[in-house]
Amino acid sequence: MSDYNIAVLAGDGIGPEVMVEAKKVLAAVTKKFNISFQLNDFDVGGLAIDNHGKALPAATLKGCEDASAILFGSIGGPKWDSLPLEERPERAALLALRGHFDLFSNLRPAKIYQGLEAFSPLRADIAAAGFDVLVVRELTSGIYFGQPKGLEGEGEEQFAYDTMRYSKREIRRIAISAFDAAQKRGKKVTSVDKANVLVCSRLWREVVEEVAKDYPEVELEHIYIDNATMQLIRNPSQFDVMLCSNLFGDIISDECAMITGSMGLLPSASINQDNFGMYEPAGGSAPDIAGKGIANPIAQILSASMLLRFSLNETAAADAIDSAVMKTLGDGILTGDLLGPDERHLAKSTSEVGDYIAALI
Amino acid sequence: MSDYNIAVLAGDGIGPEVMVEAKKVLAAVTKKFNISFQLNDFDVGGLAIDNHGKALPAATLKGCEDASAILFGSIGGPKWDSLPLEERPERAALLALRGHFDLFSNLRPAKIYQGLEAFSPLRADIAAAGFDVLVVRELTSGIYFGQPKGLEGEGEEQFAYDTMRYSKREIRRIAISAFDAAQKRGKKVTSVDKANVLVCSRLWREVVEEVAKDYPEVELEHIYIDNATMQLIRNPSQFDVMLCSNLFGDIISDECAMITGSMGLLPSASINQDNFGMYEPAGGSAPDIAGKGIANPIAQILSASMLLRFSLNETAAADAIDSAVMKTLGDGILTGDLLGPDERHLAKSTSEVGDYIAALI
Ligand SMILES: CC(C)[C@H](C(=O)O)[C@@H](O)C(=O)O
Ligand SMILES: CC(C)[C@H](C(=O)O)[C@@H](O)C(=O)O
Repeated sequence: MSDYNIAVLAGDGIGPEVMVEAKKVLAAVTKKFNISFQLNDFDVGGLAIDNHGKALPAATLKGCEDASAILFGSIGGPKWDSLPLEERPERAALLALRGHFDLFSNLRPAKIYQGLEAFSPLRADIAAAGFDVLVVRELTSGIYFGQPKGLEGEGEEQFAYDTMRYSKREIRRIAISAFDAAQKRGKKVTSVDKANVLVCSRLWREVVEEVAKDYPEVELEHIYIDNATMQLIRNPSQFDVMLCSNLFGDIISDECAMITGSMGLLPSASINQDNFGMYEPAGGSAPDIAGKGIANPIAQILSASMLLRFSLNETAAADAIDSAVMKTLGDGILTGDLLGPDERHLAKSTSEVGDYIAALI
Repeated sequence: MSDYNIAVLAGDGIGPEVMVEAKKVLAAVTKKFNISFQLNDFDVGGLAIDNHGKALPAATLKGCEDASAILFGSIGGPKWDSLPLEERPERAALLALRGHFDLFSNLRPAKIYQGLEAFSPLRADIAAAGFDVLVVRELTSGIYFGQPKGLEGEGEEQFAYDTMRYSKREIRRIAISAFDAAQKRGKKVTSVDKANVLVCSRLWREVVEEVAKDYPEVELEHIYIDNATMQLIRNPSQFDVMLCSNLFGDIISDECAMITGSMGLLPSASINQDNFGMYEPAGGSAPDIAGKGIANPIAQILSASMLLRFSLNETAAADAIDSAVMKTLGDGILTGDLLGPDERHLAKSTSEVGDYIAALI
């Protein structure tokens, strides 16, 4: 029997309540697939600031280092927004974890589920044509981490600067992630850049084209970031895998999430070279609805499924979770975010949805 | 009688044919408002590469320097896409002109016209709520022009780098453009940044807040670029003026243009401290429909109106053009891009639309 140590970092806002449901589902998987999990909880984000004075305490980092993977909830909220930037949950915990574990490959699937087309903010005929994209975002380099960064000079000539920087090695490994993924999906990679302006984008294009040669079955297309944001609205069904640098991926993945209109369903994975990874919902901590038992737990549950698939290679268990989620959606067991204004009275609670999915496994 | 010297750079693709219509409209204005124009044509872009070996010949630059303003068409096309980046029309002409004349303030209005809601790719109820935004984009600094930029190292560790850079002075002058514009419109500025990651964005926020103090009637809001691309799709009616750095403005203005669904209507202005400016349609050279007489001339005509308003201070003439365009749209005198599939047979040609607008003035 496989036994895995998972670091569970539920965090702030709706994080803790949706995490309860993900744990239920993992417990169901345990029984059925002869896997066992040691789920070790650690404080992170605002909660950790309140309890320990910093967003990523040493014990939490140690717990992650000892684990096979991290299941992450969400962090941040108005309470900690006035802290100096470097101490805020997003920077001090999220970016720190990405950097520490070299989680360079961020996978953000986004699709319009059948029956949920009406939630897409796109015109009915465009949403009806379908949308099923995997954004593959480079997560540990580019302008987020490039040095130097700073502030110099005085008075009106004082200036700030940030460095966007990419090495061939960094581009190659994320391009390989994208082509590997495309090979198993729609066999098309759209690489997003700004090669008409940025030197980084020119090197990006060059390396992506080299990598493409090893994947003769996968079609490669380049698109400028400005055009990409337009095409995603006009005709999103044309995309399969979108390969992006850190900054462009931040923008494109959020746009893709919004296009689905069902952010509460979207998981994400951030993985390193050894398949160690951190798994988290694409949406935020949603402090406005926290504690009410109405948050959609599915993004968190699908994040657990991605963890099983990518870090533990437990494909059958991951497939079982995904099917249970699909069936739950099909059966109309939905939280309020997936119901129209007239149907809100039919809304199921966070735990009812979790129970239903766990029972199906 | 005021006499103005205008440099006319029609360029490639549909540029020349829509420019003919803008000239018609300027001729109509001449008669009515006691203004006269010297319209001097110069080669630019691909045309200039073919005729003179470079996208921005010295005679063209000289012609622009001697003028009160530049009326620009559009440049580029597949024919010149294989040239080295530095020689391509977009870089060698467009970015060069922006830099040479310090055209730091790029104004891109985008709105959904009444009666044309169905062309917006957004869901009917979202489009019906309305959309009328002015994107104010910084155009001569940031990561487009920041130094150093380059390629270093060897093998897999070879790396490319670009520098995003903003001084307080550069931020202040574009922020003032945005607040001045908001004062005359909806009295709200939304400043787009990535202050949770970029040092440039932190300085940006600081200076924007300083400028805001001089405009007590204008509301200021900050939004992260990733969230901005989402909110624009979910609820675009919340925005009035969107203030952006060069790169973020490139992305946001294209997204806004696409949201209207009628790119053929959108003009833009790029202005310097002395109100010298370059005026051009927001859409591209559209080589696929060039030469067929079907392109929508309105973006070019409205660009001429912006030229009158911002560089020449001829407000009455600009207002007359804007009203004539509104009436033309209301009268259903439309090119094919503004007609549904069943109504295409009603489409007017490029010159019919231009004639109609000119006749109304
Ligand atoms: C919180 C922020 C720093 C982060 C990012 O920009 O990467 C977030 O937007 C994300 O996409 O995970
Ligand atoms: C052609 C390109 C360099 C340019 C830009 O990025 O500024 C274009 O996209 C624009 O927005 O005018």
